[in-house]
Amino acid sequence: MDPLSAYKELQGSIKETTIIQSKRLDDFLLDLIPERFDRAKTTIFKSALIAYEGFQHTASFKYRAAYNAARKSQADHLIAASSGNFGQALAYAAKIRGKKCTIVMPETSAQVKIQAVRNHGAQVVLIDTDRVSRADALASLCQKISTDHDNKPAVFSPYDHADIIEGNSTLGIEIASLVPTPDLVIAPVGGGGLLSGICLGLESAIKQAMSNNLDLAIRVIGAEPQLANDAARSLAAGHLIANEKEPRTIADGARTISLGKLNFEILQARSIEILEITEEQIAEATFLLFDLCNLKCEPTGALSLAALIQMLRNGKDLYTRPCLVVSGANVDSNVYARLINQPIVSE
Amino acid sequence: MDPLSAYKELQGSIKETTIIQSKRLDDFLLDLIPERFDRAKTTIFKSALIAYEGFQHTASFKYRAAYNAARKSQADHLIAASSGNFGQALAYAAKIRGKKCTIVMPETSAQVKIQAVRNHGAQVVLIDTDRVSRADALASLCQKISTDHDNKPAVFSPYDHADIIEGNSTLGIEIASLVPTPDLVIAPVGGGGLLSGICLGLESAIKQAMSNNLDLAIRVIGAEPQLANDAARSLAAGHLIANEKEPRTIADGARTISLGKLNFEILQARSIEILEITEEQIAEATFLLFDLCNLKCEPTGALSLAALIQMLRNGKDLYTRPCLVVSGANVDSNVYARLINQPIVSE
Repeated sequence: MDPLSAYKELQGSIKETTIIQSKRLDDFLLDLIPERFDRAKTTIFKSALIAYEGFQHTASFKYRAAYNAARKSQADHLIAASSGNFGQALAYAAKIRGKKCTIVMPETSAQVKIQAVRNHGAQVVLIDTDRVSRADALASLCQKISTDHDNKPAVFSPYDHADIIEGNSTLGIEIASLVPTPDLVIAPVGGGGLLSGICLGLESAIKQAMSNNLDLAIRVIGAEPQLANDAARSLAAGHLIANEKEPRTIADGARTISLGKLNFEILQARSIEILEITEEQIAEATFLLFDLCNLKCEPTGALSLAALIQMLRNGKDLYTRPCLVVSGANVDSNVYARLINQPIVSE
Repeated sequence: MDPLSAYKELQGSIKETTIIQSKRLDDFLLDLIPERFDRAKTTIFKSALIAYEGFQHTASFKYRAAYNAARKSQADHLIAASSGNFGQALAYAAKIRGKKCTIVMPETSAQVKIQAVRNHGAQVVLIDTDRVSRADALASLCQKISTDHDNKPAVFSPYDHADIIEGNSTLGIEIASLVPTPDLVIAPVGGGGLLSGICLGLESAIKQAMSNNLDLAIRVIGAEPQLANDAARSLAAGHLIANEKEPRTIADGARTISLGKLNFEILQARSIEILEITEEQIAEATFLLFDLCNLKCEPTGALSLAALIQMLRNGKDLYTRPCLVVSGANVDSNVYARLINQPIVSE
């Protein structure tokens, strides 16, 4: 994996992340810091930077991964199993790169998500997940395409693949280039593709900065729903642990059975800490991003703010300039309306 | 008024507008163009550019005006009557410029809006608008401050003042500098401060471009709630016409009794066309900005998209690259939740 060269290759094809700062959010966060830090508060905490991927193509960071995979693949047909952001992202990336694309989705997927993939010109194969696993469906689809067209398609995991991680690493490079540099990056964890990509991107950028005699220190922390805490458990145990079934968290981007193998290795080698976030904290953070920052954010994207709030309330590990990765904006309007229809928390 | 010099002076103190393009919005708009344009559709319409002021300080374009007024004023106490975005903007601008600020608000104003002004360190004077007019309240407040502190405060209309219009003109300059340049700008109209400012800003920028042998042609159109159509009626009649009472449109930024005098003169001299938008169209456009562009927008800010939709449906005056000014993001969460809780329109 070569984050710096992927970053160069993707310029012009992906949208740069949108950096948002909000005085109202900063005031809110400052108030969370416990009393005993009172006099030092503002010297400890300066301002939170939000790296917002809701304006990315297909409205999530997944397009970085999908485009990079589509760009590097020799195959002219790309396939994946995804009911969410990766399916849309790969469909659109394939279209832009002039390739065919087929996405395997559970037949229970929301009609609007199926249609979004089809709108990008991809084929959708619906499966009954009670009767056939996604892996089996992908294998037989792959077989069928190879036989019919005498042309082996490329199968992509949404997170457990070097080109996917490398694509996501471009966000780490963008974050490292902010001035002044953040001292902490918090990102959501599902399969671990985003978090491991950010680690590699930051490291490449830091290495390059060191060769220019710049010394950057940026810590990385993951934020995972408590209901889907396989990453926290896996990293604590030192081996991959899977959830028994798909977790029912509102953060649908984190409803993965386990970390990917590659992602686990990357995170374990760096002793990345994972904070566990309750459903209530996810809902609160989604609302706060709407109310204080005017950002539309899917629940998964709010995990990073929820984690920072948890850290500040606990009054430990205070950072000057935390960067929160808000990973996407694909949320059903009725779910979102329910999340924001709360009394105003602040002001 | 000198838009170019105000633009230079305000750099670093205001946030540049956020330009958003959305493929899903463009696809939606393209579908609206009537059949008879079918073969030419994509050569006529390229892409809509959204100039989003929701990430501006105090979350609306009003901060441009307020900061410019605070910067230029000799007084050390600024006062205004405003229950909305201008009050917050002036309070914050005064704080940044080290001045006192008092905002006159109806006692029926939402508690959250009163608190937002107070949070910026300004004083709030609540009045019973059935018993005392805003003008009288401002006059007696001005008198009281002058007497008590031997120091005459400066009173600002939210729109009818040269420094206010000049502040807003900086948005016109930013829009004119986009590459490629838009051929149409649509902005909401209440008192006319934004629309007249944009006209002057664009003209200054175009004049400067001409001296560099660049020929820009940018048409400007205003978008006004049908329930508050005093600007359309005034410009048609050739003289200022006021609404009988404060109009009850959901677009609360356009609930003005009439255009300002200065604003009317500027718009009349340029024969600016005003499109009238129904409440249903405002609600639809607010939802579409959420659904297709992931933008949180107050109903007033959605007037510009509603106007473009109206133009495309009517199949006349097609533009290649319209710029929609989405003027702010201050909307109560319960109002917004109601607006977006609709079946998905598109995809």
